[in-house]
Parts: sequence; C-alpha cells; structure tokens
Amino acid sequence: MTNTPTTYRTGVWLVGARGSVATTAIMGAAGVRDRITPTTGCVTESPDFAAATLPAFGDLVFGGHDIAETSLPKRAEQLAHAGVVPRQLPDLVHTDLTAADAEIRPGTPAIEADRSQRETAAILTEDLRSFRERHDLARVVVINVSSTEPRPEPRDEHAELAALERALDNTTLRGQSVLPPSSLYAYAALQAGCSYVDFTPSLGARLPALDELARKQRLPYAGSDGKTGETLVKSALLPMFASRRLDVLAWSGTNLLGGGDGENLADPTTVTSKTTSKQRAIGESLGYPVDGNVHIDYVPELGEWKTAWDHILFEGFLGARMSLQFTWQGCDSSLAAPLILDLARLLARAHETGHAGPLEKLAFFFKDPLGVDEHRLIPQYEMLRDFAGSLGRTQ
Amino acid sequence: MTNTPTTYRTGVWLVGARGSVATTAIMGAAGVRDRITPTTGCVTESPDFAAATLPAFGDLVFGGHDIAETSLPKRAEQLAHAGVVPRQLPDLVHTDLTAADAEIRPGTPAIEADRSQRETAAILTEDLRSFRERHDLARVVVINVSSTEPRPEPRDEHAELAALERALDNTTLRGQSVLPPSSLYAYAALQAGCSYVDFTPSLGARLPALDELARKQRLPYAGSDGKTGETLVKSALLPMFASRRLDVLAWSGTNLLGGGDGENLADPTTVTSKTTSKQRAIGESLGYPVDGNVHIDYVPELGEWKTAWDHILFEGFLGARMSLQFTWQGCDSSLAAPLILDLARLLARAHETGHAGPLEKLAFFFKDPLGVDEHRLIPQYEMLRDFAGSLGRTQ
Amino acid sequence: MTNTPTTYRTGVWLVGARGSVATTAIMGAAGVRDRITPTTGCVTESPDFAAATLPAFGDLVFGGHDIAETSLPKRAEQLAHAGVVPRQLPDLVHTDLTAADAEIRPGTPAIEADRSQRETAAILTEDLRSFRERHDLARVVVINVSSTEPRPEPRDEHAELAALERALDNTTLRGQSVLPPSSLYAYAALQAGCSYVDFTPSLGARLPALDELARKQRLPYAGSDGKTGETLVKSALLPMFASRRLDVLAWSGTNLLGGGDGENLADPTTVTSKTTSKQRAIGESLGYPVDGNVHIDYVPELGEWKTAWDHILFEGFLGARMSLQFTWQGCDSSLAAPLILDLARLLARAHETGHAGPLEKLAFFFKDPLGVDEHRLIPQYEMLRDFAGSLGRTQ
Amino acid sequence: MTNTPTTYRTGVWLVGARGSVATTAIMGAAGVRDRITPTTGCVTESPDFAAATLPAFGDLVFGGHDIAETSLPKRAEQLAHAGVVPRQLPDLVHTDLTAADAEIRPGTPAIEADRSQRETAAILTEDLRSFRERHDLARVVVINVSSTEPRPEPRDEHAELAALERALDNTTLRGQSVLPPSSLYAYAALQAGCSYVDFTPSLGARLPALDELARKQRLPYAGSDGKTGETLVKSALLPMFASRRLDVLAWSGTNLLGGGDGENLADPTTVTSKTTSKQRAIGESLGYPVDGNVHIDYVPELGEWKTAWDHILFEGFLGARMSLQFTWQGCDSSLAAPLILDLARLLARAHETGHAGPLEKLAFFFKDPLGVDEHRLIPQYEMLRDFAGSLGRTQ
Repeated sequence: MTNTPTTYRTGVWLVGARGSVATTAIMGAAGVRDRITPTTGCVTESPDFAAATLPAFGDLVFGGHDIAETSLPKRAEQLAHAGVVPRQLPDLVHTDLTAADAEIRPGTPAIEADRSQRETAAILTEDLRSFRERHDLARVVVINVSSTEPRPEPRDEHAELAALERALDNTTLRGQSVLPPSSLYAYAALQAGCSYVDFTPSLGARLPALDELARKQRLPYAGSDGKTGETLVKSALLPMFASRRLDVLAWSGTNLLGGGDGENLADPTTVTSKTTSKQRAIGESLGYPVDGNVHIDYVPELGEWKTAWDHILFEGFLGARMSLQFTWQGCDSSLAAPLILDLARLLARAHETGHAGPLEKLAFFFKDPLGVDEHRLIPQYEMLRDFAGSLGRTQ
Repeated sequence: MTNTPTTYRTGVWLVGARGSVATTAIMGAAGVRDRITPTTGCVTESPDFAAATLPAFGDLVFGGHDIAETSLPKRAEQLAHAGVVPRQLPDLVHTDLTAADAEIRPGTPAIEADRSQRETAAILTEDLRSFRERHDLARVVVINVSSTEPRPEPRDEHAELAALERALDNTTLRGQSVLPPSSLYAYAALQAGCSYVDFTPSLGARLPALDELARKQRLPYAGSDGKTGETLVKSALLPMFASRRLDVLAWSGTNLLGGGDGENLADPTTVTSKTTSKQRAIGESLGYPVDGNVHIDYVPELGEWKTAWDHILFEGFLGARMSLQFTWQGCDSSLAAPLILDLARLLARAHETGHAGPLEKLAFFFKDPLGVDEHRLIPQYEMLRDFAGSLGRTQ
Repeated sequence: MTNTPTTYRTGVWLVGARGSVATTAIMGAAGVRDRITPTTGCVTESPDFAAATLPAFGDLVFGGHDIAETSLPKRAEQLAHAGVVPRQLPDLVHTDLTAADAEIRPGTPAIEADRSQRETAAILTEDLRSFRERHDLARVVVINVSSTEPRPEPRDEHAELAALERALDNTTLRGQSVLPPSSLYAYAALQAGCSYVDFTPSLGARLPALDELARKQRLPYAGSDGKTGETLVKSALLPMFASRRLDVLAWSGTNLLGGGDGENLADPTTVTSKTTSKQRAIGESLGYPVDGNVHIDYVPELGEWKTAWDHILFEGFLGARMSLQFTWQGCDSSLAAPLILDLARLLARAHETGHAGPLEKLAFFFKDPLGVDEHRLIPQYEMLRDFAGSLGRTQ
Repeated sequence: MTNTPTTYRTGVWLVGARGSVATTAIMGAAGVRDRITPTTGCVTESPDFAAATLPAFGDLVFGGHDIAETSLPKRAEQLAHAGVVPRQLPDLVHTDLTAADAEIRPGTPAIEADRSQRETAAILTEDLRSFRERHDLARVVVINVSSTEPRPEPRDEHAELAALERALDNTTLRGQSVLPPSSLYAYAALQAGCSYVDFTPSLGARLPALDELARKQRLPYAGSDGKTGETLVKSALLPMFASRRLDVLAWSGTNLLGGGDGENLADPTTVTSKTTSKQRAIGESLGYPVDGNVHIDYVPELGEWKTAWDHILFEGFLGARMSLQFTWQGCDSSLAAPLILDLARLLARAHETGHAGPLEKLAFFFKDPLGVDEHRLIPQYEMLRDFAGSLGRTQ
C-alpha cells in the first residue's frame, strides 16, 4: 500500500544513532523505499493508516548523536553477520548508511566532558537546527534509542520551565547536572523546534518543565519505553485474564538479554527503572496488585537476541489453580526498528497538524505510556488507528 | 456486585448434566448464591454487566439430559477429590445437587434405542415443558455440554424447516437419523420454546432449518465450542501479531487432555471437528493462511486437567525469525463452568428482551462463533459488553 | 520388595520436625510399613538395594526438634488439603503422627534464648540420648530439614575440635554464637553418638572440628543440600552436554518457590548460600566456567509447589547456537521425604557397619555433595548402589 | 588434543552425500584438519579417546551416493546462508568440497530405474571398490545419512545369506525389490569389504542375512538412527526418573522439523518407523510401559532447525503429581555431522582391529542401538569410552 506522499522531507534524529536499533531502522527505511524489503513489522503500513498522509519512507533523512565510533556501515555488517538483517542489505543500502553516518555528532558524554549543561544544550540544539537547514527539512523528530540511564533524583527546578532555565543558567561549571542526558536531549530538541520521542525508560521529556516547553513551542512528544518483547505479550495477555475475570495470583518473569542493551541493564541502578515500568502495567490492567518479580539478566552470548520466560499463576472458578507460561525469543532490533520508523512518521504528521504536548494516543508503542492508563494492547491499537485517521489531509 | 434481580426463575437445562462441567456449574451457582464462593471466572459479574438485569444466580434452576448414572452428589465428590472444587463444597450444596439430580432425564442414546427420531424429539420436548411447568419457570435455556459428536454428512433436509419436518415424519423406524444428537436437542429445545446454546463443536442449531425454527419461535441461540484454553490464549495473541504486522509463519499446537473429554476426542472422527474449529481462527484473524498442525492427545492420567503447548514461528522487520511458545495448564471444568452460568443468564435475558436467531454478540465465549468473523478477544469482549448494556431494564 | 529386617529399631531425629518434609516423611514411613502407600520415590526400595540389609520402614521411630507449634496431625491435615498426600492418609496414620509429635522438643532458638551455646548443646545432646533410651533404639540418625540459615563468617575455632570445645566453654553468656544452629545440632548429635545428615545448604557438620569429632566418635555424616528439583535435572543434563562435547555458553535459571521454604530463601543472605551450591555443579561438571544467574523467588501462592525454568544456551559443531529450556513443576515435600527415609536407612546401616566421617558415596542425594567432585547423576547412582552393596550382612 | 595419526587414509562414503548432514560433516572435517574450526560436538576428540589411535581428521577422504544434483559447494553456501556454518567456511574449504563432490555417484533410485537389484548391487559395490583403489585407502566406512525409508514387509529370504543371494539372483527384472535401499547399500558395502553404519531409522544391516555376511567378511557394522535431539535429552532424563524411582505416567512429545528431513518424515509411513524407535527407549529404560504420543510435524519455515517439546507427567512419593517439560531447539546438521565423523573414525579402527558384526558398544550414538538394551546416556558413554580404550595400538 502507499501513503499520499508529503512534498517535503522529514528528519529523523536518533540519540544513540550507531546502536543496533538505529542502524536497523536506517537500513530498513532505505530497503522499504527501494522496495527490496517488505514492510513486515511496520504498523503504519497497515491499510488502517492509509488515510493519515504520513511521510513516505523515502522522505526520511537520518542523523543523530552518539559517542560510539563504529560506523553505521560497519555496524550494519555486524548485524548482517548476526542474522538480524539480510546478508546483502548493508551493501544494497551502503549509500544511505554512509550518508546517515556523516550526520552523526558526538553525544552528551563527549560534549559535557568540558562544558556546562547550558553550553551542552546549546550545542545539541545547534546540531539539530543545522541538520534541518542543511537538508531543507520540513521538520525533525528526535528519538532517543540510547542506553537506559539511572533514574535521577527529583529536583525542584524540574517543576516549571522558568526554574529550569534559571538552574541551567547557574550551572556554568562543567559536571553539574540539572538534567539527566535524556532530558537534556529533550530540552534541546524542543528548543530547536523538534518533536521528541523517548523509546527508552529514561526520564526524557517527562518533567513538568519540559511539558511546559513543548506546549509553548507547539510541539508534540511521546514515550516511554518501546514495547518490543515480554511487555508486548503481557499487554496482549493481561486483558484476557481481566475480561474473563480470572484472578492473577502471581506474574513472574525472567529476561535474558544479549548485546549492549543487556550489558547496560545489568547495572542494578538502571534495572530498577526498567523493571518498574514493566510491572506497572500489571496492576493497572487488572485493577489489583499482583505478586511477582521481574529479573533482567545480561547473557552476552545471546548477542542481538533476547529470551523472556513468564510464569503466570491464576485462579479460576471455585478456586482451581492454573498457570500459563510463555517463552519469547526475539531480536530487539528487528522488533524496535520498524516502530522507530512508525513513530517518526506519526510524530512528524502530528507536529504538522498542530498537536502539542504528550501524545497519549500512541500508548500502543510503549511499556509506560505517557498520560494514559490503557494498557490493553488492542484498545491501544484502536485508539492509535483512530488517531491516525484524524491526521489525514482532508480533515 | 449485585444485579437487579428478576422476579421470576430461569431454567438451565444441561445436555450432559452429569459431566464435570455441568456438575461444577451447578455447585458454583449454589455457592455464589450462598456467598460461600467468589465469582472468579464469571464474566457477567463484572461491573460492565451490572445494568443488564440478568437473572440472579439464585434464580437459576437446573435440570438436564444424560445417560451417565453417576449421581451429581457422587460426581461432585470426585471433583472435590481431584482438587477441582473445594473439599467442603459438595456437602455445603448437597441439597442443590440432589435437587438438580432429580431433574435429570435419560439422554437420546437411551431414548432412541427403540424409538424414531420424531418420537425421541417429542419426549425431549416434553421433558423440557414439564420441567418449566413443574418449577414455574419464566423460561428455560438449553445448553449442550455433552461430548463432541462426529460431524455428520450434510443432508438436503437440513436446508429448510418444512423439509426437516417431513423427513422427521418419515423416519418412523428406530435407528434412522435425520439429525445428529446435538441438533435433535436443539430442535426439541426450540419446539419447547427454549433458547439453545452449543458449548461443544457439534452441529447443534447450525442448520438453516433450525435457524428458521428459532426465528419462527422468536428464540435466540448461540455457539459454538466454548473457548476455555489454547484457543482463548490464541484469540488474545493473534491480534498482537496482526496489529504489529508481524508475519506468522507457522502456528503449531499440541493439546494433552485428561478425563472424559480427552477420551472422546481421541476418536479420530471427532478430533477432526475439534481441530478444524481451532485452526479456523488463525486464518481469519490474520487474513492469510498459516502453516501448522494441531494435535489432540488423550492422556488419561491428567485427570480433569489439560496442558496445551503452542509454538508460533514469526518473522519481523527485515526477515528476522523469532518465536513465541506458551504452555497453558488448565482445568476445563473450572474454566467452562462459569461461562455456562454466564451464557444461561445472557440467553435468558436475550430471550426475554425479544432477541431471535443467532446471537453474534456472544462471540467472546466461543472458538467458532456463529455469524461473525471477529476472532480478536478484546473486541469480542467490547461487543459483548455493549450488547449486555442494551439488555438492561430501562432500555 | 522387602529388605532383610534388622532386629532392632532405628531412631530418626528430624531438625525441623514439624515442617512439610518431615511430616510427609513420617506419614510415608507409616504408610509404607502398613502397605497402604507405594514406595514411589524411595531409592532404597530398588532391587539394587535389596542386599544392603537396611532397617525396615517399620523399624523407624521418629522424633525431632522444632520451634513450630502446629502439631504433626494438624500439619498432615494441611498437606492432605493441599493435595500433597492422599486425603485419608493423615487419619490412617494418626497414631504414628501423634506418637512422633510427642517426641518433638523445642529447637535452638527457644533454648538459646536464655542459655549459652554450651548449655544449649548439652540440652540437645540430652534430648537425643533420652530419645534413644526411652525407645530402646539401636542407633539414631539426626537429619536437618529445617530452614536454610545464613552462611556464617569463618572462625578460627572451627578448625579443630579442641579449639571449638574451648570456645564453647568460654561462651557462657547467652547470645554468643560460636556455631550456627545447624552446626550446633551436628555437634550435639555427634556428642550423643548419633550420625548426622544435612539436607539443607547450611554449614552443618562441614567444619574440620566437627569432622574430627565424627571420626573420634566413629560416626558417619552426610550432606549437603538435598537435590530435589532444578539441580536434580541439571545433574542429569550436564553430563549430556559434557559427553557430547557441546559447549554450554550460558545456563540461566529462575526458581519460584511457594510455602515456608520460599519465604525463608527470599531473605537475600540465605539466597546466597543456596544459589552458590546450585551453580557449583555446573562448572565442576563441565570443566569450564559457565555464564548465567540463578534466581530464587518467593511466590507464596504456589503453596507447597515450586516451578523452575532453566535456559541453556549451547554451541555445537561449527558454531551453531542452540538452546534447551526446561520447566520443572514439583512438590518439594513429595520429592524430599522419601530421600529422608533413604538417608536415615543408609546412615543407620553405615553407622552399624563402622563407617566414620563423610559418606562421599551418597553424593546422589545432594546438590553440594561432601568430599566428591562427581556431579553426574547416574555415575553418582552407580557409586551409591555399589556402596549399598558393600553394606550387606554377608560382606 | 591430537590423536596418534594412522599412516594410511580412510574413506568415508556417505549415502545421501549431498544432504545437509553430509555437507556439514565434509566441511567440518576439513575445518578441523586445518585448525580453523574447533572440535565442539566431536565426541572422539575428548581426552577419553586419546589412546584409541583413531584416524586423524586429515586422513578422511569423502565420497558417496546421492541422486540430488545440488553440488556440495552450492549446498555449503546454503548452509552458511542459513547460519548453520560460519559464513567464510565454504570458501575456506572449497577445494575439499569440490574434491568430495567429484566422488559422488548416482544413488539407487537412479540405478534401479532400469536394472535389477542384483545389477544395482554390483554397481554400488564397484563404486566402493573403485573409490578405495583410486585413493589408495586402507579401508572405507559406508554411512547412511539419506532420508528415512518406509519400513518394508518382512521376507523369508532376509533370514539367511544363502536365501538372500538366491533371491537376488532371481530378481533379474527391474523394479523387483528383495531389499529396501538402505539394506541394498549395506549389502553392497559388505560385499565390497566396507564397514557400514546406519544413521537413519531404516532397516540397513539389521537382517540376519546381512549379519551373516558381515561376520563372513569380518566387517563391523553399527546403528540405528542417530540420537541428535529429543531422544538425546530423553536418554539423559529417563535414568533420572528411574534412579529416583519416580513413576512416569505419561511422556508426550511434539517434534517440529524443518528442511528436507521434515518433509520426508511427514509421510505417514515413514513417520511410523521414526516414532517407534523414539518410544522404544522409554519402556526399556523404565521397565514399564508409558502412555503418550510422539508427533512429528513438518514446518518448512523452520529451515535447518527443529524444535521439540516434551511433557512428562510423573508421580512421586504418596501420589503427588508433578511434571517436567522441555523445549529443545537444535540444528540437525550441526548435531549430526560431528557424530558422523566420530562413527567413521571408530568404525575404521574397529575394522582395523578385527571387530566383526554389530558394535553394541556404540549405543551412545543411536536412538535404536543394535544388540543392546542400555538406553541410559551416561552408561552408554562409559561403555563407548571403555571400548575406545580397547582399540588402542598398544593393546
């Protein structure tokens, strides 16, 4: 199926642009544009989205921030070697990978090394503005696909924009952090007139001060924490238990993660923020608290793959104890990358049509959706579909 | 929560009244009425159904057909022994079990032994009328929870009521079958002015001639094949793959069934009708045919329990191969019994409010729902909830 | 099958005598003696052990220490209710349960509350002596089936018996701990002339000072940590990978434990001692270190049951990555109780035939076998069988 | 580790020489010889086999029969593409693949098309003799890795060699089958002075007449049905249940097979011979018959991979019901290929050292081992290890 093409190009700026997810998304956009790969996994390619007049895959221009030095073509080779993408694809889209790689700028760790957060923000903002101008882009969507960061302590200056600006002004010394990296990127994106998506469980734009900035700038934002595995299955199964009034007694899960994502999550401080957003859905979906732990283990030998085992103990009529177990064996990049493209297209169009503030209708994509309590996958899908319908040209 | 009580009593006539599912339903209705057991697993006890003015549990009066001779109190003891229902429950509801047991009449195999189907139908109809009168019931719902029967050959006289009546008139000799047992029960139910539900994969009311009879009698009917295990999970998971546009390459399943249900299904001719209705949902949900077999094995030592393992091979963006496996360990009686009570309450109220013909809005309960292609569990739930809303007193 | 009966009776003194495992063992011994229950799960009832002239089940006399106050008959009722033992069994062996319950004495926490460890040990020793005399027992086997205790700090006085005795003499004030409870029980057992088995991962007799005492007293001891679930399966599967030279890359496990055992293990300090003994087998069996975590979660709703999921990632010829997963759903009491009876019989006979010190040949029963590196289940079995053969009368 | 090299070269003649298993074995032998791949999965590379003076990998010379026309280098490419072997390997061992491919002769279906079985046998025998002479081989091992064939009807002339020879003499017309293909290959191998291994469940050398021929020719043979997946795990787990005296109530299995092997096994007549050898081990290992079905499904999308799910229901002490499930996800070629090399080396050395008739000591490799009832994996391993020890030069 085809979308009515927009006449202007859309920037997709990826924080963590040389990671597996970003690399796969960049390759995939080129492959779909050139009709050498199918659109499997791209939600916005469903006929349900045909009327939304989203940007075409060929209209997406990629850039981003990263501190990794492995180039996109090299990273693409590694993904092909690992069986994540077809062997020939890196060669077939080599031009696109090289072009995107040329648009990658150093990320905050590199910048902040000898600058204040105010100065760092200014550099990030300038990176975005210059990207937009250089490519004559109608608009730019910033998407955070970098590693999960530790959840920072709450601070008073997060509560309103004026206080945040003052605090940033005052932190002229390097190393003084008012905002965690994800929020600094969000701040810079919004300052530069770009919409923002947090695909990680990091804080991102989820601060009253940044919400205020987004509304002031008339910019939409979305998040948090892309739903690509265990939680996706959970959001499909939880409503089954709820609608049948089966009583979930305990929901236990173990996630074995390979690759860089696993390594990052093995740090106990970041695990907390990940497991918390995973468990939140259970209580909210069922309306009562449910027992059970979620473990996240780093198993380097799994490479780009992850395996999740969940055990659900439940009770039926007259007290019978029953169980459901599932094992999900997925490839994170393959699951996340098409959603990155979906989100880029949807945010661009939402921005264009004047949406500002959190996009609750995009809950379908997230483990910890902003501003909405709906955790049931299919109602989330229908909400998304209806939202997309409202984005169309003729409305 | 409570429902506005109806002022009159409702008969629930169970074909297969001494089986595990029926016995559990009868015990459960009494237990819920006496507030000694919770309503876990009863869909119609959700607040979503509060306005539907369904008959109260205490208004249900049970009877049925069966050829089994193990009495309900004895069967209840066995279920308590097997851990399906609480140990004390059979004693606590002994009066109810005895009362229902006194309302069980011989089933078709016993009647048809020396009578024509016309004569048999007359006896079944009379059983229902006399049950209704004896207990002064406002109406009676007939629910088939007996064993699955082999799928019969199509016959011309199934196509319209007049032809069916003529064929029944002509089969004066015993042993001559115009209708399979499930359809003969449906015919008798409709003749007696009772609504009919097929909780099994049998043919039941699914014949143009019987549909004509139901509409003529202004009676609703529903079916087929209660969704209590593997297919329930399937109907929750299939829309996940569809909405995410993940490409299901093969869906394979193995069902290990204990108890009488398993034994019956081990007969290859009945297995066919069961596996067919199980696989139908996959193709219809995804819109493309999916490879894979479903096996049903009888494992007597599993007793009242069943275990299903499903393996789903799917493909994501750029061709990555992934899989989801699940193992469901359930107790059929515990899963089915509350649905029987739900269906009895909903059919009674639908009958009362003038619904006639197939109730498509009840697809949520069935593997092979009549007259509807919606196989996604949550949309089915929402359809049911809205339907229940329309049944309320004030509308 | 029958064993040549011994002419004298054998005491089985259980530390944790009112727990699920102990209660099941006591009921089972009586049930087997009376031929009302089969010997399923009793290793020593195999024909391989027929020549070992072990004490008969009917020769076992039970007593023990515990601080729990729920009586054995009451605990037995609860186990029958939970489906762990047949419903009628507690009634059928009521006399035995009552008799054993009368032989339960307060455990160390109650004694140590206002006494020194020296005084406590004297009381424990006296409990054992008086039990042996009261019942005219040929010998007594003390078996620790109490909760896992935190692994204590190493102490110099554990290194030799004289130093230990001096340290105990000096700890006249209450609350001063030279030995953890399991080791204090072992000390008391050995002082009283009783053999000792640690079925838990606790320290027990595993101290040079206690080994010295055992040899001095000519007493055998065995342990540690009964192999009843995940580790049992591991010890069957690890040699498969080793013998086929398949390269195990990561072995990850999650244990969901219900009941008292789970609650105790959820305490992070005790978890450490449990998970350590679980992982030890992997490295020693394969000869190289293997990646992977073991989690132990307390899931109270699982009751007497436990579920373990293990994921093994391995590599074959020319680098192909493969995996094996297993889910074990077991009942700890049912798995452990027959082994308690096996160990009681074997220790009694080993004591009788003059074995002193650690019984390495009993590795088959333990996760963390004393004094032996053989972790392969079947070679362990053959070692046990040969040892049993050497215990026979005629040898 | 290294083996004392033999001074002469050994032929490995593969029936089904262009299949996945054969291609992987040929590549692997070259890779190991050149030290570019490790020996993972090669049993005979364990130190336990160091003294057996087996032929070195570099001494193996490959040839075989096949009717497939895809060349070995092409097939190797496909396996690399599917991730079964490293990407670069086909190029690195291209010379070896080409050399082996040049030694592949048409298989029986091509030969028998217009010849009698006597004539066909003569051609097969001549293929083997000429291969041995052309390469100046000390001896040749013929290994059947072709597709499973339907189990033929028993025939009187299979009972003794003289009768078999007469029957072959009499079947001058084409299409008249005295022997199934696997047995015709075995006959030809033995006639040519080559040892024979059946790695499939086919009849092969398992006929009294062929056993007589093997003994007459002083040749060893081995089989049947390589143990590479579900049955391997079974043979590790069955002794666990047996040694613990846990009562297996039902063992159910489902095998999802991709690739050519799956397609072949989906034919119901061949499935029978496969499932029978799979189930045989259960009864023989436990000593009592066990309930349960084994299904084999062809799932083409699984490609070179297979997935097996087994569910074992068992009973413990005092009747508690428990279960173990496992899921094995393996690559058949990767599992089977190193065993082919092991068998070639062992048969060659057994031949050299004068062994004739069935090699029972090789049961470790087979689902349905010839002439032995030992189905426990580790005792099988120890038997194999001891046998290998007896093959050494100095003995």
